[in-house]
Amino acid sequence: MNSVAVKHQAQTVRSVPSERSLQSKTIHHGNQMWIQRTISMPPQQRGYHLITDAVLRQIPEIKSIRVGLFHLFIQHTSASLTINENADPDVRTDFETAMNHAVPESLPYVHTIEGPDDMPAHVKASMLGSSISIPISQGKLAMGMWQGIYLCEHRDAATSRNLIATIQGEPS
Amino acid sequence: MNSVAVKHQAQTVRSVPSERSLQSKTIHHGNQMWIQRTISMPPQQRGYHLITDAVLRQIPEIKSIRVGLFHLFIQHTSASLTINENADPDVRTDFETAMNHAVPESLPYVHTIEGPDDMPAHVKASMLGSSISIPISQGKLAMGMWQGIYLCEHRDAATSRNLIATIQGEPS
Amino acid sequence: MNSVAVKHQAQTVRSVPSERSLQSKTIHHGNQMWIQRTISMPPQQRGYHLITDAVLRQIPEIKSIRVGLFHLFIQHTSASLTINENADPDVRTDFETAMNHAVPESLPYVHTIEGPDDMPAHVKASMLGSSISIPISQGKLAMGMWQGIYLCEHRDAATSRNLIATIQGEPS
Repeated sequence: MNSVAVKHQAQTVRSVPSERSLQSKTIHHGNQMWIQRTISMPPQQRGYHLITDAVLRQIPEIKSIRVGLFHLFIQHTSASLTINENADPDVRTDFETAMNHAVPESLPYVHTIEGPDDMPAHVKASMLGSSISIPISQGKLAMGMWQGIYLCEHRDAATSRNLIATIQGEPS
Repeated sequence: MNSVAVKHQAQTVRSVPSERSLQSKTIHHGNQMWIQRTISMPPQQRGYHLITDAVLRQIPEIKSIRVGLFHLFIQHTSASLTINENADPDVRTDFETAMNHAVPESLPYVHTIEGPDDMPAHVKASMLGSSISIPISQGKLAMGMWQGIYLCEHRDAATSRNLIATIQGEPS
Repeated sequence: MNSVAVKHQAQTVRSVPSERSLQSKTIHHGNQMWIQRTISMPPQQRGYHLITDAVLRQIPEIKSIRVGLFHLFIQHTSASLTINENADPDVRTDFETAMNHAVPESLPYVHTIEGPDDMPAHVKASMLGSSISIPISQGKLAMGMWQGIYLCEHRDAATSRNLIATIQGEPS
């Protein structure tokens, strides 16, 4: 179970939807391999969620890449992806505080029909970004020991979020 | 005509420069294809401009990629690229409001020789980023239905902006 | 010598550690080439440091790429990478001012055990990003004439920082 699912379970005491692979494609000719897969993440509470394990479970082929790049893209404009500290949950709580300060709901927005959290969600999504890319080395993501992948949910009432994972590289 | 050009036309009632391809390169050997092209965007007003159609018109070869990545890079430090909501123009108006709040012109900057909008333009450019990358799947950009590409012009009096489009992938 | 090293030397009047290549890998079969290398940057003062030359010195193979992409990743969560103005050092000073305004140390953070600069460092790192990618064209990074690569050190007392450089492309 991933950290996101564990968190939901602790709060709801019922079975928890976890991420699912919707479609997949693997191409492997000689010296360049491409793998692309859609990952559906279940709805998350507004906040910052560590999804490293949930994502890695969906891309086992990464083990077979000697050198390459991993790209992860979110197909939404009010949620985002970033890389940050993977240990202390307080860091994710403080991200919410800091991003709410940087992009307050109280500004004189014009686009307010979807609620006060909507326009700040769009701006936060662009500040943090719709994709991350991470080098692959010897079959593993070459992240630092404290780095993890965050799904940043900026809406109060979110739906599921689709991610596209794209792996390319030289097979081992 | 792209949305940017239409907007200019409405304001000026004269013929409007549109984006141009300056140079191009296509390499296609077997299982990996590279296409790279410089796109010149005409000067835009300070603000956030939807350029998805203008960019797509310059990279018709994307249709021939089965799986790959599209990378778009801006060769400037006071304008940026991001992905956000492609429907309501009010969202782009509110981006200006929110980014001006996050990076105000009133801070005690040292680098002021080019005017009060210059230093905030540099910081906004780095917050939003100088490149975007989007997965390609079955000959199309695999963006979500509400996603579009923004050219973010942070200067009051901007010149034309050069973008470098790089496509790589497995041909169909 | 790179600008970072020069700056340290001016302050300390002793021999200065410069960036080092820790490990390296080159794969070159026919039409797709991959190069990946870990670059260790010596500790920097809190602030924004131009590292273009230091990075380029470690990746001479870029000269042999006709079309491709350069990816640079930082394996840390309180330092970041961005692309911005490469000429006036005042711009880098003003980045510190602007980012401290956007993410103040005075917010009611929960994660404070590592000092008041720690949590803002994490948020700034995500706002600016843990990687940059730049097109390669005819053996050179296709940056604009005013663009350079910044290492953004967000901690007061930093250690050395590891970067992973990944180059891929079509050889000349």
